[in-house]
Amino acid sequence: MRIDANDIQALARGCAVLGTGGGGDVRTGSLAAVRAIREYGPVPLVKLGDLPDDALVVPLSGIGAPTVSHEMIHGEDEPKRIAEEVERIFGRPPSAIMSSEIGGANGVAPVAWAAQLGVPLLDADGMGRAFPEVQMVSMYVAGLPADLVIMSDVAGNVVTIRPLDGLWSERIARAVCVAVGSHALMADYVLTAATARGAVIEGSVTRALEVGRATQGAADPLEALRESLGAVRLITGKLTDVERRTTGGFVRGTATIEGTGDDRGRRLSVELQNENLVAIEEGRVRAMVPDLITVVDTETAAAIQTEALRYGQRVTVLAWPCDPLWRTGKGLETAGPRAFGYDLDYVPVEELMARG
Amino acid sequence: MRIDANDIQALARGCAVLGTGGGGDVRTGSLAAVRAIREYGPVPLVKLGDLPDDALVVPLSGIGAPTVSHEMIHGEDEPKRIAEEVERIFGRPPSAIMSSEIGGANGVAPVAWAAQLGVPLLDADGMGRAFPEVQMVSMYVAGLPADLVIMSDVAGNVVTIRPLDGLWSERIARAVCVAVGSHALMADYVLTAATARGAVIEGSVTRALEVGRATQGAADPLEALRESLGAVRLITGKLTDVERRTTGGFVRGTATIEGTGDDRGRRLSVELQNENLVAIEEGRVRAMVPDLITVVDTETAAAIQTEALRYGQRVTVLAWPCDPLWRTGKGLETAGPRAFGYDLDYVPVEELMARG
Repeated sequence: MRIDANDIQALARGCAVLGTGGGGDVRTGSLAAVRAIREYGPVPLVKLGDLPDDALVVPLSGIGAPTVSHEMIHGEDEPKRIAEEVERIFGRPPSAIMSSEIGGANGVAPVAWAAQLGVPLLDADGMGRAFPEVQMVSMYVAGLPADLVIMSDVAGNVVTIRPLDGLWSERIARAVCVAVGSHALMADYVLTAATARGAVIEGSVTRALEVGRATQGAADPLEALRESLGAVRLITGKLTDVERRTTGGFVRGTATIEGTGDDRGRRLSVELQNENLVAIEEGRVRAMVPDLITVVDTETAAAIQTEALRYGQRVTVLAWPCDPLWRTGKGLETAGPRAFGYDLDYVPVEELMARG
Repeated sequence: MRIDANDIQALARGCAVLGTGGGGDVRTGSLAAVRAIREYGPVPLVKLGDLPDDALVVPLSGIGAPTVSHEMIHGEDEPKRIAEEVERIFGRPPSAIMSSEIGGANGVAPVAWAAQLGVPLLDADGMGRAFPEVQMVSMYVAGLPADLVIMSDVAGNVVTIRPLDGLWSERIARAVCVAVGSHALMADYVLTAATARGAVIEGSVTRALEVGRATQGAADPLEALRESLGAVRLITGKLTDVERRTTGGFVRGTATIEGTGDDRGRRLSVELQNENLVAIEEGRVRAMVPDLITVVDTETAAAIQTEALRYGQRVTVLAWPCDPLWRTGKGLETAGPRAFGYDLDYVPVEELMARG
């Protein structure tokens, strides 16, 4: 399969939904993808099983404060400089690139990067959603040593980090990012196809495309989306309060939705830290990270980013299960509620729903 | 020639004098050097002319805020990790290491690093003195592209920077340094012996040893030091005022010396920014950066670091010419008075003295 310019709108819609409110604005990533496909041609989408064991897969993502990466200022040269550094280190060029994070802009922009490099995009990612910190990736949870990060910025600097562990990786990468203007392109890990097996979330790009297409031309876009995701509807209503502040490069806050129609009299609050992390109704948790929680426009079923939440919007909150990898001990330690400072024991969303 | 444990005291004294008040405390570097020589044996000192053209020379220095690097917390592994990264990048190990900065602790500690690596120390450095910023090195002035920095910290992280230029190099290296705990070991440039010719200041280690030995057992240590340096004595007197503050990782301030004896009635102020940069008497500049200005104890002729200046000390201020490289257009642009924010046209110290 090849990703053509016509696929980008659906991909972007799907990535926005999987972004759980975060992951950056998909619009600029989409423009870059369409432009790159027009210039370099469609991008082959390959499955991990199609690659030889020693093929190099480079997981790429943009990092930066969301308020800055919102603009996603990228040159054409960042992916090339990272590919050059990969070839310098490994003695062979990348065979494919992969989205580190399918949710948000980092799910769409890799199409542009793959087109610019003339390599296929791997149908996989490292999250199955969006997360704010670089160690919150499947490769880390799978126990691959976080031993190589390559960063490239619009000015032309290339920084290669061989960190002691994922936490040092996060700390140093963040400092470099700030030093180079609060935005950079980053390869976090360089994988062989053999090491990638079991350490990446396969089928993510296909899933984002399917989710994005589900609502196209649907009589009931919201129901079509819910079904495509296997999601539960937590509430349909009106945004009555949004408290949001940007601190330390992160957006934190709370969105409150008051039910309308069948949900009249109910009230749900969503805790935000770049992404939607915890949904609470009358003191009871209804869904929590790493399960996915997305606020969508009730009429169009388009996902609304945390930065775009506004008083009065008619919204529906959907929640659905994360990839099983995030439900393992290491997965929850890495990106469960406590990793974000919530004193909560993780309970899967489907179990919370069954409890009623 | 080999540097033995017995040479370290003289080397440290000489490096302190060449440090012009900065470059970090030589004492901890000395301890590390003595310890490493006892464990690994004396360190061969080689001349650039003795190395084959393709031999790799790695200029090393510790970077960090002086208030932190004062402690010079180093593990044994930082030089090894940098050497491993050099070998990974160039396909061969370093043939020699070089002090990036002969002035201060960075002139002494390389003896320890060379001993730990089992390679010779090159009799050269990148400054002939001490300077606070990473682009203030002879390799930059000689026009070598600042295209590679390798950093290693006590935790075990290795960061390789391929900067666009020396200013980006400084900015990114500084950010990484802060992220890893405000101290790191750094290889700035990796040179072949062929590219090092004309781009390093040769004979620096020998000079530091000679300067350090000049005062040992001398009847008049101050005069012996002055003669060894080819320095002029700007004033002998008493420190009557020290204004000093640490901002943005730099020590800035002014030291005022009132003349005693033959100099009674005179008054000299020394402007500090980590190093002693400008000496002024009654509104007239007597010496300025990149020429060297060092405050020494009048009795022992031992150099006094800017951080150790105290009210009441009996001191003499010496000044002497810098390496000719720093007097070129590019040299003055890089490390002349204006590079430190002084609105002064550079005039060599010997010319200022001739003017009387």
